[in-house]
Amino acid sequence: MQNSESAGLEQELRVRKLEISDKGKGFIELLQQLGVCDSVSDNEFQNRFLELSSLGDDHVICVMEDELCRRIIATGSVLIEKKFLRNCGKVGHIEDVVVDSSARGKQLGKKVIQFLTDHARSMGCYKVILDCSLENKVFYEKCGFKHSSVQMAMYFA
Amino acid sequence: MQNSESAGLEQELRVRKLEISDKGKGFIELLQQLGVCDSVSDNEFQNRFLELSSLGDDHVICVMEDELCRRIIATGSVLIEKKFLRNCGKVGHIEDVVVDSSARGKQLGKKVIQFLTDHARSMGCYKVILDCSLENKVFYEKCGFKHSSVQMAMYFA
Repeated sequence: MQNSESAGLEQELRVRKLEISDKGKGFIELLQQLGVCDSVSDNEFQNRFLELSSLGDDHVICVMEDELCRRIIATGSVLIEKKFLRNCGKVGHIEDVVVDSSARGKQLGKKVIQFLTDHARSMGCYKVILDCSLENKVFYEKCGFKHSSVQMAMYFA
Repeated sequence: MQNSESAGLEQELRVRKLEISDKGKGFIELLQQLGVCDSVSDNEFQNRFLELSSLGDDHVICVMEDELCRRIIATGSVLIEKKFLRNCGKVGHIEDVVVDSSARGKQLGKKVIQFLTDHARSMGCYKVILDCSLENKVFYEKCGFKHSSVQMAMYFA
């Protein structure tokens, strides 16, 4: 069902914060396109949702919903880190950005990144950072990001 | 003054959590070796310290103190990110690691990284990540990290 604001032929997709009902709209299935996420019970989802909600604006997950089929088709998150460095500065960490494979090429990823960077800016961050594969570097450059450094990782067994 | 546990000729340097009195022991001056940090008042320090303390084990800053001269000579922090991805997994983000220029070459950085990775592991993280310059890549490889991806950044005016 289209809402009244998007009465045109093309629905107007907006970015909004994650809601607890989004698990039933394919949010976890969307994350599976990004990495392992194959056993999240309703209870685990609810607990993590409440845990993140308690952080308020310091951890925001946004989504885009296809309101015609009531499916979540894009998401991304931003975590606000509070430092002593940079005169008690703040940094936004963007994580877990993914657009549904059927909805790519429509600039949805750009809208998600815009929402997350706007949030970081409004929180007083002096920068926003993210890690990506070499193949996604050009996309983030188009979003206004610049190659900054090297990401290193250690996986625990 | 040496404490009784380090009665040898070489003092035993241990890693501990940041304490509010560490501002008076050169903690901010140490951060200046890493980046801009030139105007943090006692009040701002205290407010940020309390803000971070309220996050408990989800944001830990560690330090090493030279107990002979009562100066902070190494520090690093780790922020625990809670995800839905990886079946509600957690990731440790290591930030702001620095060893005083007069104390380098003594494996203090390695001890700081060990403390922070141990903390992330004990918190149930499936990985710990950090961003570094190309010149520091070899150091982190020696600590057990592997080159993972590209860091992108956007600075706000």
